[in-house]
Amino acid sequence: MSLFVQKFGGTSVASVERIENIAARIIRSRNAGHDVVVVVSAMGDETDRLVSLANEVNYDGLDARRELDVLLSTGEQATIALLAMTLLKHGVKAESVLGWQASILTDSEHSKARILEIDETVLQAKISDGIVPVVAGFQGIDQKGHVTTLGRGGSDTTAVALAAVLKADECQIYTDVEGVFTTDPRVVEGARCLKQMTFEEMLELASLGSRVLHTRAVEFASKYQVPLRVLSSFEEKPGTLITKEDDSMEQPIISGIAFTRDEAKLTILGVKDVPGIASAILGPISDANIEVDMIVQNVAADMSTDFTFTVRRDDYDQAKQILENIAKNIDAREVSGDNKIAKLSLVGVGMRSHAGVASRMFKVLADESINIQMISTSEIKISVVLAEKYLELAARALHSAFELSEEVN
Amino acid sequence: MSLFVQKFGGTSVASVERIENIAARIIRSRNAGHDVVVVVSAMGDETDRLVSLANEVNYDGLDARRELDVLLSTGEQATIALLAMTLLKHGVKAESVLGWQASILTDSEHSKARILEIDETVLQAKISDGIVPVVAGFQGIDQKGHVTTLGRGGSDTTAVALAAVLKADECQIYTDVEGVFTTDPRVVEGARCLKQMTFEEMLELASLGSRVLHTRAVEFASKYQVPLRVLSSFEEKPGTLITKEDDSMEQPIISGIAFTRDEAKLTILGVKDVPGIASAILGPISDANIEVDMIVQNVAADMSTDFTFTVRRDDYDQAKQILENIAKNIDAREVSGDNKIAKLSLVGVGMRSHAGVASRMFKVLADESINIQMISTSEIKISVVLAEKYLELAARALHSAFELSEEVN
Repeated sequence: MSLFVQKFGGTSVASVERIENIAARIIRSRNAGHDVVVVVSAMGDETDRLVSLANEVNYDGLDARRELDVLLSTGEQATIALLAMTLLKHGVKAESVLGWQASILTDSEHSKARILEIDETVLQAKISDGIVPVVAGFQGIDQKGHVTTLGRGGSDTTAVALAAVLKADECQIYTDVEGVFTTDPRVVEGARCLKQMTFEEMLELASLGSRVLHTRAVEFASKYQVPLRVLSSFEEKPGTLITKEDDSMEQPIISGIAFTRDEAKLTILGVKDVPGIASAILGPISDANIEVDMIVQNVAADMSTDFTFTVRRDDYDQAKQILENIAKNIDAREVSGDNKIAKLSLVGVGMRSHAGVASRMFKVLADESINIQMISTSEIKISVVLAEKYLELAARALHSAFELSEEVN
Repeated sequence: MSLFVQKFGGTSVASVERIENIAARIIRSRNAGHDVVVVVSAMGDETDRLVSLANEVNYDGLDARRELDVLLSTGEQATIALLAMTLLKHGVKAESVLGWQASILTDSEHSKARILEIDETVLQAKISDGIVPVVAGFQGIDQKGHVTTLGRGGSDTTAVALAAVLKADECQIYTDVEGVFTTDPRVVEGARCLKQMTFEEMLELASLGSRVLHTRAVEFASKYQVPLRVLSSFEEKPGTLITKEDDSMEQPIISGIAFTRDEAKLTILGVKDVPGIASAILGPISDANIEVDMIVQNVAADMSTDFTFTVRRDDYDQAKQILENIAKNIDAREVSGDNKIAKLSLVGVGMRSHAGVASRMFKVLADESINIQMISTSEIKISVVLAEKYLELAARALHSAFELSEEVN
């Protein structure tokens, strides 16, 4: 007999009919002899509906964020009530549990609060009584007794946090996809659902654009060693199990290929190479709340340097304008940019013990005559920037060269 | 400087635009130097929307009522957040307060809970800090920490209960009508908004079909001597003040005329007049959850009796069938009925000190050739049952005869 925390996202609970489906799934787990704690999101587009009501009020003062949390948290509250009712109808002892009822204590950063502490005794008592607690995801309570929300992907975080304090055997995240794929199946035909991967790999994939799981939830799971499983609400398949790295398991060199088109590149040319120049350039960009991703700096022979970085495509125009002002101030030669680029990354813990992955990757791209514009690496990841038009070709070539279609774990 | 509890119903908060309007009204009270505690209902048809979601689940077990309360209470939660945001936008310190946050402790009768206790210190602290608490009506929390709701008209009850514990100077109930009228203005042209009336009169009027205020809220106000004012959300008018009876105020004999068409009459004829016969007749009716209103029994010369009572028109067919079965069992002669009747009542505390109101009423009706079918009286009320078709004529004739169009208080 195991204890599972099962989390169902917005599309899985978008209607009373779908809530019936997930009730059936919960009941199957119970009938197999397991204890279950359920975490759910708001129904379908309910959060969007609530946000648009708040937008109608048209006030985004800091003090309004506390009230926005009170408003948004109604979404999950409605779902837990409907799901608990549905379980009761089928003779399952179930009880809805709000964030404050589960004592999910957070800091007071409304709309992006972080969980500080959970008193697990509340839920443990219900589990002991044979009750399925149906917990509202995304919400908590701060020390002053105000309702808080955890921000985007917050329900995943709730599920993982509960699994951690309850020492659950698995935290199961039900989504509208089968699991985590080696790459985007819409782009590469041979993309395969991974049976298993590590937290680190998932973190790299999540932050690189695979939107299956929220980064914070994976970090949390990694920190507290909570086995995570991503699986489909709609199909009966095992999905992808995400755990800590295990020496006994055979590591594939590469687990997956992530990519994002949402990128733009900016270069400032002929900058004097003196200390403090990087912060003189990036300071005003960051002051404008523009996130910088990759950064590359080359020193030329005349002691001047070219400085290149990437930003989100949405921020390109604003960043370019700021950069042109900076160029005048620091007497740089020229500013150039390109917003038709994409970033592609190979991810795999096997890289640690296998040399030559990078050169193999570059050779595959060279064989396809694809020019690499920027390179960035970490222990388990190699990212390259390339022209957007080559993205699909590059993904397919690499997927095939690294034999990702073949079952290895 | 006074303390007002201001309650706004569903139609007053049906849209963000209307919420802006009531925010303006609250701000005017604040600018006039008053402290304000606000109580609101769910927006427009939101409660109906939530109920229909629950109906889709299609399970009405007792255990589901706890979850229904969790679901329904989201309606008021959304309103308080939006109104607090709107007040903040206009520079007013405001804070939403949920039932559990205000420590509104109720019993555990889900969907019709009664308030047991309120810890007023929570709201008092906010008022002292210059904050306008915006409290969710209709909801509370039981001793086990479950969310409860107070049933129909619950937000009025919340407002009155808060006014009582906070010792507010007035509990102001904002509605879509100007106040309490001498009678239904759609029927009698000269109907006039009353400036003042007593709790007892309001209770008689409320239970007789004037749907301005919920009976429970008036009882609560009467018990704790909370001055109640009914007024319009949409117009700037003083409305109707409802207080305890005051010797110094000049009492009109009659305050108002209430009526309801929602009535039916049943008679069982030729019943043996023996002890226990009334309960033999009414027992099965009440077992079927049919509410009996007026009851009249006449003794005939042959020691048999005719027994007549009224029920809601919706219950007429079921009640008639039950009565026909009873008639066989107790060997009664015949059952007859009429579902085209109406009830009309004169209400006024002045009746206590003025004799002859009843005979004057009967004369007015006789002059119009209107037959009175049943009569029932209390200390401050005379009710008659008549054929529905005469209802408007009777109301107009009595309104005129008792000079209710003229300003007296």
